[in-house]
Amino acid sequence: MSKPQPIEYTEAAGDVRAVFDDIKASRNVADVNNFWKYLGRDPALLARTWQGVKEVMAPGALDPLTKEMVYLAVSVTNACPYCIASHTAAARKAGMTDAMFGELMGVVAMANATNRLANGYRVLVDAAFD
Amino acid sequence: MSKPQPIEYTEAAGDVRAVFDDIKASRNVADVNNFWKYLGRDPALLARTWQGVKEVMAPGALDPLTKEMVYLAVSVTNACPYCIASHTAAARKAGMTDAMFGELMGVVAMANATNRLANGYRVLVDAAFD
Amino acid sequence: MSKPQPIEYTEAAGDVRAVFDDIKASRNVADVNNFWKYLGRDPALLARTWQGVKEVMAPGALDPLTKEMVYLAVSVTNACPYCIASHTAAARKAGMTDAMFGELMGVVAMANATNRLANGYRVLVDAAFD
Amino acid sequence: MSKPQPIEYTEAAGDVRAVFDDIKASRNVADVNNFWKYLGRDPALLARTWQGVKEVMAPGALDPLTKEMVYLAVSVTNACPYCIASHTAAARKAGMTDAMFGELMGVVAMANATNRLANGYRVLVDAAFD
Amino acid sequence: MSKPQPIEYTEAAGDVRAVFDDIKASRNVADVNNFWKYLGRDPALLARTWQGVKEVMAPGALDPLTKEMVYLAVSVTNACPYCIASHTAAARKAGMTDAMFGELMGVVAMANATNRLANGYRVLVDAAFD
Amino acid sequence: MSKPQPIEYTEAAGDVRAVFDDIKASRNVADVNNFWKYLGRDPALLARTWQGVKEVMAPGALDPLTKEMVYLAVSVTNACPYCIASHTAAARKAGMTDAMFGELMGVVAMANATNRLANGYRVLVDAAFD
Repeated sequence: MSKPQPIEYTEAAGDVRAVFDDIKASRNVADVNNFWKYLGRDPALLARTWQGVKEVMAPGALDPLTKEMVYLAVSVTNACPYCIASHTAAARKAGMTDAMFGELMGVVAMANATNRLANGYRVLVDAAFD
Repeated sequence: MSKPQPIEYTEAAGDVRAVFDDIKASRNVADVNNFWKYLGRDPALLARTWQGVKEVMAPGALDPLTKEMVYLAVSVTNACPYCIASHTAAARKAGMTDAMFGELMGVVAMANATNRLANGYRVLVDAAFD
Repeated sequence: MSKPQPIEYTEAAGDVRAVFDDIKASRNVADVNNFWKYLGRDPALLARTWQGVKEVMAPGALDPLTKEMVYLAVSVTNACPYCIASHTAAARKAGMTDAMFGELMGVVAMANATNRLANGYRVLVDAAFD
Repeated sequence: MSKPQPIEYTEAAGDVRAVFDDIKASRNVADVNNFWKYLGRDPALLARTWQGVKEVMAPGALDPLTKEMVYLAVSVTNACPYCIASHTAAARKAGMTDAMFGELMGVVAMANATNRLANGYRVLVDAAFD
Repeated sequence: MSKPQPIEYTEAAGDVRAVFDDIKASRNVADVNNFWKYLGRDPALLARTWQGVKEVMAPGALDPLTKEMVYLAVSVTNACPYCIASHTAAARKAGMTDAMFGELMGVVAMANATNRLANGYRVLVDAAFD
Repeated sequence: MSKPQPIEYTEAAGDVRAVFDDIKASRNVADVNNFWKYLGRDPALLARTWQGVKEVMAPGALDPLTKEMVYLAVSVTNACPYCIASHTAAARKAGMTDAMFGELMGVVAMANATNRLANGYRVLVDAAFD
């Protein structure tokens, strides 16, 4: 069977379970999302990815809501259905309203459009930008 | 000659010049960026694109700085050198600090990574996200 | 009806059936995958694509397993669900273990991340790389 | 030296030169474009790619100008500077006017925008499309 | 509930209903496609997107069938399942035959391939293209 | 000035210099590549990215040459000029010959082509792949 399979908390061995426990504690959730259950098949990848996400998404110079909306904008641009679903949910949890979601999609659409216009017209970079 | 060429303000005919004037007034700048000068070759495309950008980037449920950072995140994901340069400048002007830029790039990098992990592992969408 | 439909072996006319026969013989399989059945609607596209795949994936300076993993890495990057499924299966058949799949996904994720960092930071190419 | 280098006509060995000759004759040009000179480093890749391009771009159910504009639309979407330059030139040669180029860019921009809106809003496919 | 939901005609308030009515009249259809029903959640985004699509897809220097095929080519390149389905249907309605669809996919495939060859080989732009 | 600037070894403060030292020692090089010098502007991003790259690219179930070629395949697919240059150099150093590079590009091109054919034809996943 070639399709990757998730690993449930009860099946998870020590190092994988430890990451699952940290995710549950950090996010105060009863179970980890499917994403982490699939990565559980590769303990090193799981640990590195969770460590990275935890660092990157922590409040800092940018607040968590802004970070979740940027994450969603990239996921929409890349056509990742799972990531669109999970980061829409995460952004909502962090405070994204319907109006904010609508404006976010508007910016994402416009950026994807003008990215191609700039490349298609071979626009030279303005000296002021360098 | 097949390479698109920019059109300068002084060469711009009525409808193109009107858009250039609106850009200059709206942004309080002495001249429009190269992007608009190239689009000036197609007055309908220029007018539609400027109208869209003006609407999308206006303050609303999201503030201009957040919008500029989302625009930059998409441009980085899509590999548009001109857009990266111009929206880095615009985001800086709207208040993006070095620390914010660094964190933004961190989120963009992480999202691009996990987008592929979710697709590569064929992660099923959690029921809670639907 | 606008949705493309597959063509089954028994329905396939001479030139399409000849390609199907060559795929079955080359791969020693009882039936061709769905991908080929859909391309069967355009005999020229089917023949050209199969000829190309056969040439490209033949053992040469790179072995078949390496080629299948590269194919999978590209498919994951591009968000092609069918290709991810079929090339995961093909790579498994060519010898990809769970550990290899996990490391492969790790490299794909990291490359997608650093691709954006290099573009976002506008990193100048080192003289040594030219 | 790791950077790929082009191979000029005068340096080209038999099989590479034969492809170069076919390109020159088919297109009625004095020299092949740089693209082919770089591919000349791998004779099998050169021959397969040229054969494919020749078949795909030949007049058929679609005329050469339409094909060149589609080629350009894809190249703009993918951010390939060389391909944008070469297929803009080829489309111009096939009859693309300034007005056609402007409208083409308008469609490419709009498609890139709405592609993200449809994915971002997770729009269900209408029954009529299946 | 974080998943975006469509808005039906009968639920649509004044400004959204006005856009729906214009779509129905312009296209002579009994109901709008799902795409518009989801955008209906953000009246400004809906109005701007419909206005843009109507302008861009109107007959001009390029005919509607060519525009629909370019739209489809971009949607295929970007992996947007909804857009592939809807623009295949739209292109069929505008006159795309099976043979044209097959050739279109052939051009899209070839462009996606050679875009990577040109970037991978770092091909220098020919002086003639500038 | 909005353009990111590299930070040289001699300017690097303690934590950044420590990462630079680890890169130099791990790779046995006299200086770090430009990529790391730009990331040096954000010490946390630099440390996390280097740690990740070191883990991911270490020999394991996959050998370093295979990993470098996968990295290059992804970079070519994503249109990252810097990454294409640096990972071509790294793959060469790890043993990639001209013939291997040519075959790698052939696989990347074919995968990019068939990814679009599978999406464009909306090919259903074979039961055997699930």
